[in-house]
Amino acid sequence: MSAARISRLAVIGAGLIGSSIARAAREKGLADTVVVSDADPGVRARVRLLGFADVVAETAAEAARDADLVIACVPVCASGAVAAEVGPELKPGAILSDVGSVKGAVLEAMAPFVPPHAHLIPAHPVAGTEFSGPEAGFAALFENRWCILTPPEGADPEAVERLAALWRGMGANVEAMTARHHDLVLAITSHVPHLIAYNIVGTAAHLEETLTSEVIKFSAGGFRDFTRIAASDPTMWRDVFLTNREAVLEMLGRFTEDLSALQRAIRYGDGEALFAHFTRTRAIRRSIIEMGQETAAPDFGRRPAPGAAE
Amino acid sequence: MSAARISRLAVIGAGLIGSSIARAAREKGLADTVVVSDADPGVRARVRLLGFADVVAETAAEAARDADLVIACVPVCASGAVAAEVGPELKPGAILSDVGSVKGAVLEAMAPFVPPHAHLIPAHPVAGTEFSGPEAGFAALFENRWCILTPPEGADPEAVERLAALWRGMGANVEAMTARHHDLVLAITSHVPHLIAYNIVGTAAHLEETLTSEVIKFSAGGFRDFTRIAASDPTMWRDVFLTNREAVLEMLGRFTEDLSALQRAIRYGDGEALFAHFTRTRAIRRSIIEMGQETAAPDFGRRPAPGAAE
Ligand SMILES: NC(=O)c1ccc[n+]([C@@H]2O[C@H](COP(=O)([O-])OP(=O)(O)OC[C@H]3O[C@@H](n4cnc5c(N)ncnc54)[C@H](OP(=O)(O)O)[C@@H]3O)[C@@H](O)[C@H]2O)c1
Ligand SMILES: NC(=O)c1ccc[n+]([C@@H]2O[C@H](COP(=O)([O-])OP(=O)(O)OC[C@H]3O[C@@H](n4cnc5c(N)ncnc54)[C@H](OP(=O)(O)O)[C@@H]3O)[C@@H](O)[C@H]2O)c1
Repeated sequence: MSAARISRLAVIGAGLIGSSIARAAREKGLADTVVVSDADPGVRARVRLLGFADVVAETAAEAARDADLVIACVPVCASGAVAAEVGPELKPGAILSDVGSVKGAVLEAMAPFVPPHAHLIPAHPVAGTEFSGPEAGFAALFENRWCILTPPEGADPEAVERLAALWRGMGANVEAMTARHHDLVLAITSHVPHLIAYNIVGTAAHLEETLTSEVIKFSAGGFRDFTRIAASDPTMWRDVFLTNREAVLEMLGRFTEDLSALQRAIRYGDGEALFAHFTRTRAIRRSIIEMGQETAAPDFGRRPAPGAAE
Repeated sequence: MSAARISRLAVIGAGLIGSSIARAAREKGLADTVVVSDADPGVRARVRLLGFADVVAETAAEAARDADLVIACVPVCASGAVAAEVGPELKPGAILSDVGSVKGAVLEAMAPFVPPHAHLIPAHPVAGTEFSGPEAGFAALFENRWCILTPPEGADPEAVERLAALWRGMGANVEAMTARHHDLVLAITSHVPHLIAYNIVGTAAHLEETLTSEVIKFSAGGFRDFTRIAASDPTMWRDVFLTNREAVLEMLGRFTEDLSALQRAIRYGDGEALFAHFTRTRAIRRSIIEMGQETAAPDFGRRPAPGAAE
């Protein structure tokens, strides 16, 4: 299916994801005009300096005016406010989308503000880094990554395809599913992993002071991997846990049940159970590498810190 | 303090760590002769082919004969058997050491076999990758990493210094502490992180089959970091949990208490508590990067999988 070209693309929120979309769209010529807006005047000034937008709009409403596609790239709990602001500006046939890490709550928050002549098609690119802000984005962020669309029931197939074409143009593989299913899958692939990474780094921070400094020193044993995840944006993650509560609590319940079993095996010295568990988990990594979602290089091919001896 | 040169270095167990020591010692000329042995004849054959040993010995006893320094590089629960085999061969003044990830249990298992004319100085290089076997090792593995020595009370300072000099020669920073303290620190920096990584990957593997395949597909959201840790050697990790039970259970207890608090904050929608927790953990990563134990590059500077679009 060929999709109509995007004349005006409006990106609301110029953080890691929004600025990556603007950069990719410009670099690959996916829209005639890329308009960027952000609630923070400081961010708007930096976007002007960085030069990845054709137009920097003062308000989301101004950015959305006459746009074919408006993408809210803001923390999940702010998506309703963006929809309220841009809704009245949406022209007939315009698409309103987002990039939020939770989809059920976003759909619910945005839907009331979308006029019947426009289309609401939420989306979530499964790609990111631990950094945020307009400087952190880059055009290649979505290459070879998945973008999940969660069109509501009865969504216009042409609008869905137009949005999908933009994501494919940025290098992503596109898949569609229900918002509910998205939230369940992401709870285990992303939300619970972030929670337990935040948690173990927090546990380490709560130790006696001398112990904490040793934890930092000897972090190369595995802990430092967790600190990368736990360095992600606090606002973004607060919103994720506030809005995907049900699925997160369900998956967290399974996680702690399984952890109790491992804990019991350790307490009673059950080496066979431990060995069996530690063997089964290897196949999953193999599959992820085979699917091209991960490097096979030892230690992620991680380079040492600048200034480190090599 | 200047340390006597090592004439004959014996490495018992030619896996990731043993083969890295042999390579580094040869490359940097830290011993006149590097002798390597392994219980597995297939591994010995591969060591001959790889050519990083001056001599490949058929048995640990043969390797240890006339050696100044013998390093057991085997899974923690095998260190007692190695000590039993090499003990009778240790010449006066010889040092027996190891690289095990747990130190209290190793000390206990090896000590009975060390004759009074030799020195037992356990050690643990805090460096590794998720791979094992003689092909996985490389000479630079220990550069800018810590090596922790846990000399028993009353250990000979000259023997300690001789071992420390070897580790510094391989690029490591050396620190000494008691075995008990080592096991507590490593429980939180390494053992519990490995356990929870193994656990969440296991939880994902136990989901309904279609859900598991989606977890693999959308793993870039954070989950794939955990799969790297959970791809580590099952024998090594079974031994770690069997031998550092007390410290692991203590730290695991703190971890689950803290997790319950986060879970509660999610259940009752306490955004402020979540935000506060997610903010505190960032400082720890900054310190690790400042100490040169980690790269500051987004996503570890991870390169995409071979064959991935870019
Ligand atoms: N980071 C990731 O790895 C990742 C991956 C996939 C999806 N996502 C999703 O992408 C979205 C954005 O994340 P990000 O990492 O790009 O965040 P970010 O770097 O923190 O950027 C968000 C930007 O949106 C602005 N903003 C907040 N509320 C606004 C509003 N009402 N109107 C206009 N601008 C507003 C923020 O300004 P202030 O600084 O003034 O608040 C900030 O500049 C989130 O929903 C997140 O769930 C993130
Ligand atoms: N991997 C890491 O990241 C890391 C980091 C720091 C410390 N360590 C510690 O280093 C030690 C070795 O780990 P590794 O990763 O190098 O393991 P590895 O790659 O699995 O190698 C261990 C080698 O020792 C051999 N072996 C086992 N029992 C033996 C015995 N009784 N006599 C002689 N050889 C024997 C094994 O042969 P088989 O294959 O026949 O068993 C294998 O070839 C462990 O104690 C571990 O805790 C590991």
